[in-house]
Amino acid sequence: MALKYKLTYFDCKALGEPIRFLFRYGGIEFEDDRFESEMWPQLKSKMPFGQAPVLEYDGKVINQSVAISRYAAKKVGLAGADDWEALQIDATVDTITDMRLKIANYHYDNDAASKEKKKEPLMKETIPYYMPKFEEQVKRNGGYFVNNKLTWADLYFVAVLDYLNWMVGEKILLEGGPTLNKPTAKLVLENYHLFKAWIAKRPDTTY
Amino acid sequence: MALKYKLTYFDCKALGEPIRFLFRYGGIEFEDDRFESEMWPQLKSKMPFGQAPVLEYDGKVINQSVAISRYAAKKVGLAGADDWEALQIDATVDTITDMRLKIANYHYDNDAASKEKKKEPLMKETIPYYMPKFEEQVKRNGGYFVNNKLTWADLYFVAVLDYLNWMVGEKILLEGGPTLNKPTAKLVLENYHLFKAWIAKRPDTTY
Repeated sequence: MALKYKLTYFDCKALGEPIRFLFRYGGIEFEDDRFESEMWPQLKSKMPFGQAPVLEYDGKVINQSVAISRYAAKKVGLAGADDWEALQIDATVDTITDMRLKIANYHYDNDAASKEKKKEPLMKETIPYYMPKFEEQVKRNGGYFVNNKLTWADLYFVAVLDYLNWMVGEKILLEGGPTLNKPTAKLVLENYHLFKAWIAKRPDTTY
Repeated sequence: MALKYKLTYFDCKALGEPIRFLFRYGGIEFEDDRFESEMWPQLKSKMPFGQAPVLEYDGKVINQSVAISRYAAKKVGLAGADDWEALQIDATVDTITDMRLKIANYHYDNDAASKEKKKEPLMKETIPYYMPKFEEQVKRNGGYFVNNKLTWADLYFVAVLDYLNWMVGEKILLEGGPTLNKPTAKLVLENYHLFKAWIAKRPDTTY
């Protein structure tokens, strides 16, 4: 039997979806292993550094979603034509992660008062800081994040968008939202089109 | 005149030091451009996404310290022999970053009461969760983080250690600290030895 990748994650898009997008983009077969949230306490202790998603291949298991996405991007030819281009892609994804972590810092705050206090700066400062800069970058790069061509930075952004919107609690980062202008909306739509078949058949989860 | 890298950062080690270590490891000349903290408000608006360090080369400027470190690692041959090894290195660095961000979430909390509340879980749960796992990994890999050989994961860890200890407020992550056992202490010492010349002559900053 041929070796096959196995991606283990919650039954949601979130941090697993960029990897799923990338494997599908390159037609790389993989086992889309999803577990229910109730299973997590049991599974967590078995995961390297207590995290998911993890990728399994040839008896080896590895964590960290962004690192796995980069690996998948290399396998499907979307990781950059040279070292500087790879750097531009990596920097873009890390900046998307910076924004994601700021949104998560609000969303996952269990203290209601503290969470409420974080909402206005997030909505009025953080997101309106990042999004126009992303727009500018996409506009400057012919409708893509880097060098006028599709790279895993584009797929990464589009694949985590539902998760970001869900954490924010409003579709502020989606088409029609106040912070999303034409260049990025077009990028999102084109990617949705690219993954139409997958989007139509993937498990229907909120985020 | 030959093209030369320019690394612009605060006058401290922190997130700039891994890049400095990596360039020095490979004997790549670079301008170690440091600015005083008072200059930051002025400089911030000129930085892509308002962040430092940034790397300049051939008229191009790029942000994101980890992405820049990976780029430098490729230039000096420490970025892994194949895609899976690169993935192992990337995952390790991202996990070090996870721990760093949890420490930073405590250290940079401006609310004294909230900060105090974070201290015990950080010291008694977070750090004692990560460090023994790192120890185990280093032990399993012959004194290195990945595959029994020096990679940029090792240099990254050692280069940010002063910054991590400074944020924690105790040398808990250093040799002699309660969470650091032999494998990682040895890795740290060997790296200190490798960069002895640089450590002796670099600007003397707290973190």
